[in-house]
Amino acid sequence: MNLVIDIGNTLVKYAVFDNGTLMYDESSEAGLFLSKVKGLFGKFPEINRSLISSVGRLEGKERDIVALFCKVHVLSNTSKVPFKNSYATPQTLGVDRLALATAAFYQNPRGNTLVVDAGTCITYDMVNNFGEYIGGAISPGVQMRYRAMHQQTAGLPLLQPEDILDFIGNSTQACMHSGVINGVAQEVDGIIGQYRSRFQDLTVILTGGDAHFFAKRLKNTIFANPKFLLEGLNYLLEYNKS
Amino acid sequence: MNLVIDIGNTLVKYAVFDNGTLMYDESSEAGLFLSKVKGLFGKFPEINRSLISSVGRLEGKERDIVALFCKVHVLSNTSKVPFKNSYATPQTLGVDRLALATAAFYQNPRGNTLVVDAGTCITYDMVNNFGEYIGGAISPGVQMRYRAMHQQTAGLPLLQPEDILDFIGNSTQACMHSGVINGVAQEVDGIIGQYRSRFQDLTVILTGGDAHFFAKRLKNTIFANPKFLLEGLNYLLEYNKS
Repeated sequence: MNLVIDIGNTLVKYAVFDNGTLMYDESSEAGLFLSKVKGLFGKFPEINRSLISSVGRLEGKERDIVALFCKVHVLSNTSKVPFKNSYATPQTLGVDRLALATAAFYQNPRGNTLVVDAGTCITYDMVNNFGEYIGGAISPGVQMRYRAMHQQTAGLPLLQPEDILDFIGNSTQACMHSGVINGVAQEVDGIIGQYRSRFQDLTVILTGGDAHFFAKRLKNTIFANPKFLLEGLNYLLEYNKS
Repeated sequence: MNLVIDIGNTLVKYAVFDNGTLMYDESSEAGLFLSKVKGLFGKFPEINRSLISSVGRLEGKERDIVALFCKVHVLSNTSKVPFKNSYATPQTLGVDRLALATAAFYQNPRGNTLVVDAGTCITYDMVNNFGEYIGGAISPGVQMRYRAMHQQTAGLPLLQPEDILDFIGNSTQACMHSGVINGVAQEVDGIIGQYRSRFQDLTVILTGGDAHFFAKRLKNTIFANPKFLLEGLNYLLEYNKS
């Protein structure tokens, strides 16, 4: 069994795979890392390989903790990837985007795939039908937009994401919800349209914890897969076994 | 002559109007307020009325400085407006948005007008053909999006806005520029499309200091008017004279 751990900007996600099948996953604050890992090895003693992915600086502590239980691969820009990486600056390509491109490559090997991941940031990643990762875009995530409007202005409140009744807000709070939720939906829909115009038979995967805030507002057809990143990390763990 | 002063989140803007015509405008950091105001009254001794608009908390100091030279109206939610205000929470409607709605009302009195103002935030404000302000939306501005991605993540740099070569970025910096500049263009274009579907013969005014970063990427027809807010403030000064 494989354990993959994704240390994000806000949460740590843990997932257990058996032969490519996701058996279990959960998430926690960073401070609970040791107890969560202990618990997972208690629950799944068959785990014999693991991979850690971190978008920030990894302090080594997490690796040392997991290494008490099994072999660990720390995902980095020197890890092997199955696709052709045509990014001009592969050394700055986030490991989360490596995982998304890997999942796109394996799940749609001869197709054009765009992955839209709505997390702390919204990332757009394109793998073409030659198995080539060609890049994409990074824009602020749903919660980041709310926080930025509060932090960077004198008068706007800090709101939690909330669905909107109409794209025309008639109060300051309704205006902010519309600007973020409908704004992100229009942005994502417009960008998917741009990719559709350039790539034939495009498959669009929508993933990430904040996708549900706007997914139903998209006109474009998408496949929602909340575990796409974890699946990509598991593929990378298998690919980097030897 | 009228002097209107717009104290924004980042800059203070000053504009001198003579009989509805913009004669002069400039902007400065907040710290230079006294010397700028002195300079303007030296240059335009005919100024005999003024209006101050501030999106943040006005400390009174600015009002006292201008009051040394002429009568001052401080724009607030109790100022008179020429349009019907159907905002559910008029007491939280930013004074900048009051000014934009006023300019929309006077410049297109029997039409449907959407004003998109790209400043610290991007605001959308709709005045319908009954002369009624019905609300809109607020989303993060161009520079706010760059700053948020740097401040709220562990690894992304702080970039200055830059035009993009293509909507597919193939480096982290190109991805961030695409995510902000193309992202905002897609958001604004999509939202204009939503208003166009609901309101006949819609006039769209695009204003604000950051509009130039994405204006040429819009498919929808818009009227660019960088001084729209200042014109609205001058209308409000005239309207609140008596």
